[in-house]
Amino acid sequence: LTTPFVIALDAMGGDKAPQSVLSGAAMAIERHPGIQYLLFGDEERLKPMLAKLPKLAACAEIRHTAAVVSPSEKPSQALRRGRDSSMRRAIDAVAAGEAVGVVSGGNTGALMAMSKFVLHTLPGIDRPAIAGIFPTINGEAVVLDLGANIECDANNLVQFAVMGAAFARSVLGLPNPTVGLLNVGEEELKGNDTVRLAAQILRGTPLPLEFIGFIEGDDITKGTSDVVVTDGFTGNIALRSAEGSAKLCFQFLRQAFGQSLLARLGYLLARAELNRMRQRLNPQNYNGGVFLGLNGISVKSHGGSDAHGFAAAVGVAAAMAKDQLKQRIIEDVKRFGGVAESPSQAAAQ
Amino acid sequence: LTTPFVIALDAMGGDKAPQSVLSGAAMAIERHPGIQYLLFGDEERLKPMLAKLPKLAACAEIRHTAAVVSPSEKPSQALRRGRDSSMRRAIDAVAAGEAVGVVSGGNTGALMAMSKFVLHTLPGIDRPAIAGIFPTINGEAVVLDLGANIECDANNLVQFAVMGAAFARSVLGLPNPTVGLLNVGEEELKGNDTVRLAAQILRGTPLPLEFIGFIEGDDITKGTSDVVVTDGFTGNIALRSAEGSAKLCFQFLRQAFGQSLLARLGYLLARAELNRMRQRLNPQNYNGGVFLGLNGISVKSHGGSDAHGFAAAVGVAAAMAKDQLKQRIIEDVKRFGGVAESPSQAAAQ
Repeated sequence: LTTPFVIALDAMGGDKAPQSVLSGAAMAIERHPGIQYLLFGDEERLKPMLAKLPKLAACAEIRHTAAVVSPSEKPSQALRRGRDSSMRRAIDAVAAGEAVGVVSGGNTGALMAMSKFVLHTLPGIDRPAIAGIFPTINGEAVVLDLGANIECDANNLVQFAVMGAAFARSVLGLPNPTVGLLNVGEEELKGNDTVRLAAQILRGTPLPLEFIGFIEGDDITKGTSDVVVTDGFTGNIALRSAEGSAKLCFQFLRQAFGQSLLARLGYLLARAELNRMRQRLNPQNYNGGVFLGLNGISVKSHGGSDAHGFAAAVGVAAAMAKDQLKQRIIEDVKRFGGVAESPSQAAAQ
Repeated sequence: LTTPFVIALDAMGGDKAPQSVLSGAAMAIERHPGIQYLLFGDEERLKPMLAKLPKLAACAEIRHTAAVVSPSEKPSQALRRGRDSSMRRAIDAVAAGEAVGVVSGGNTGALMAMSKFVLHTLPGIDRPAIAGIFPTINGEAVVLDLGANIECDANNLVQFAVMGAAFARSVLGLPNPTVGLLNVGEEELKGNDTVRLAAQILRGTPLPLEFIGFIEGDDITKGTSDVVVTDGFTGNIALRSAEGSAKLCFQFLRQAFGQSLLARLGYLLARAELNRMRQRLNPQNYNGGVFLGLNGISVKSHGGSDAHGFAAAVGVAAAMAKDQLKQRIIEDVKRFGGVAESPSQAAAQ
């Protein structure tokens, strides 16, 4: 196995694991030739599945692990008791340099805590953040933090902007991504001290990112900026509210199509296009919540995702690896320097 | 005019005013017999319109005002310069006891600032909040604060819960509304100090509200609780994100129906039901952002709303008036007492 494209997989994480993991890994090979895998999980279950996927078998190695982190386990418990779990051993492989990154569909809190504990944060980064990719009217946007940091200071938000922009360059392929800071209005005086100070710092950025200032909640799906920066409390609630709203639309749509014979007929005629639309909004296609700011790639796949969803998460890890995102973030943060020393920041602390 | 059902209308506020205001006011009479109006605005424009609405003319009185608060005016400017505006004079009528409440489709910030300045907060309420009614899978939910208070302490959140529950009883007709506190997870230890302390206080409530604990962003549209409590920063961003997500769904839906001849035919067959679904999600039907906690009813109608939207906003004001919501809030806050004195709260201050 050559190091740059080895990805460690938690083969036991997720509702449909290990089948969804193996099938997804096999799909990802087609899209990202050169990927190789370390599969952490129950060898007895994995072996026969792998035998049915010869292309995957040719570039994957099973590493037997007996333990699994349960979805209900608390992060602190998982850290203490999960040292031999498939999730932990996959992360350890990244720390040991055997793999560039880990992908898991298991317990999010445990993956975050273990990744942080094992991989540590990159130099210059105070706290890692969870980033996600979301559909917009004209494409996709990166949103972070989605819940890793409940309370953030201006410095954290600035670092999220730098990491989010680097991620957008790698994964969305945008050379000069625009970055917006989530707020309750666009005017400079809106919001709390933290977002105002972060905006002030970002306005003076020498980085390859274009800070467009404050944006509002509906700007996320409008695609007003390529990167949306916010604290983990607001980001998590905004994301879940948006997901809830999309579900409500589909629910009402289903009811509408069931309300008359004509409507049902109409549904049958438009079914193919409606299913394609549903796919465009399906979170599984935007799979791969990513922990940014760690010394190694760590990607979370939706717990309920199928093989397609898992393949998307592997694709995100592959794009980050190919683009050497880690190096990029280290350099950007270094070049951006002086953030912690900015006088207003020092005064705020 | 008998006082209990007189509502002061800012006839000049909103993109389609004064026509939308007058037509909406006329519609509201059908649904809430007994309402009477004071119409503040340009008499020369209002008179001929009113002449065409004889049922409205029979229970409305025009009060001429020449000035209008512009949509772009800052709240502080509006407070200083807008003393003779239709918006301000309508609020003044509430303070003078001529009307129980005001409804305006004008500048939100100006309406909030003027209402607060003129009407003051109710005894026991530290800060007023903006509440809105939103569609859920099984009905409707009240969400507050939608942006009046960027930073909130636990006490503010507790008062929002009390006010939101009183509002849900009046406007949604629920005798014992459930209240959820928006957070990043349901477990007691999740979130920041503020939400944890607020939850601790609410768990000991002697009020006619059922506190169900923490809820997440997608619980808003799931209808997990009748009332959703959060700070104005998070609430505004969650609401706008949800609106953006619904818009994205409709945009994708429109594209889906345009993608093939069959799909277009399907749309034509299902059109009536789809339009009805659209109406269910239309924010205009959930019109009437309400300022709760003031010594008088103040309801904001969407700036872009038509007559139907304005009628819905008037309906909200009427329900609050009929139910004597103000008295209810005063009594609930009084009975709830001791909030400000709770030892943990005192320690946090």
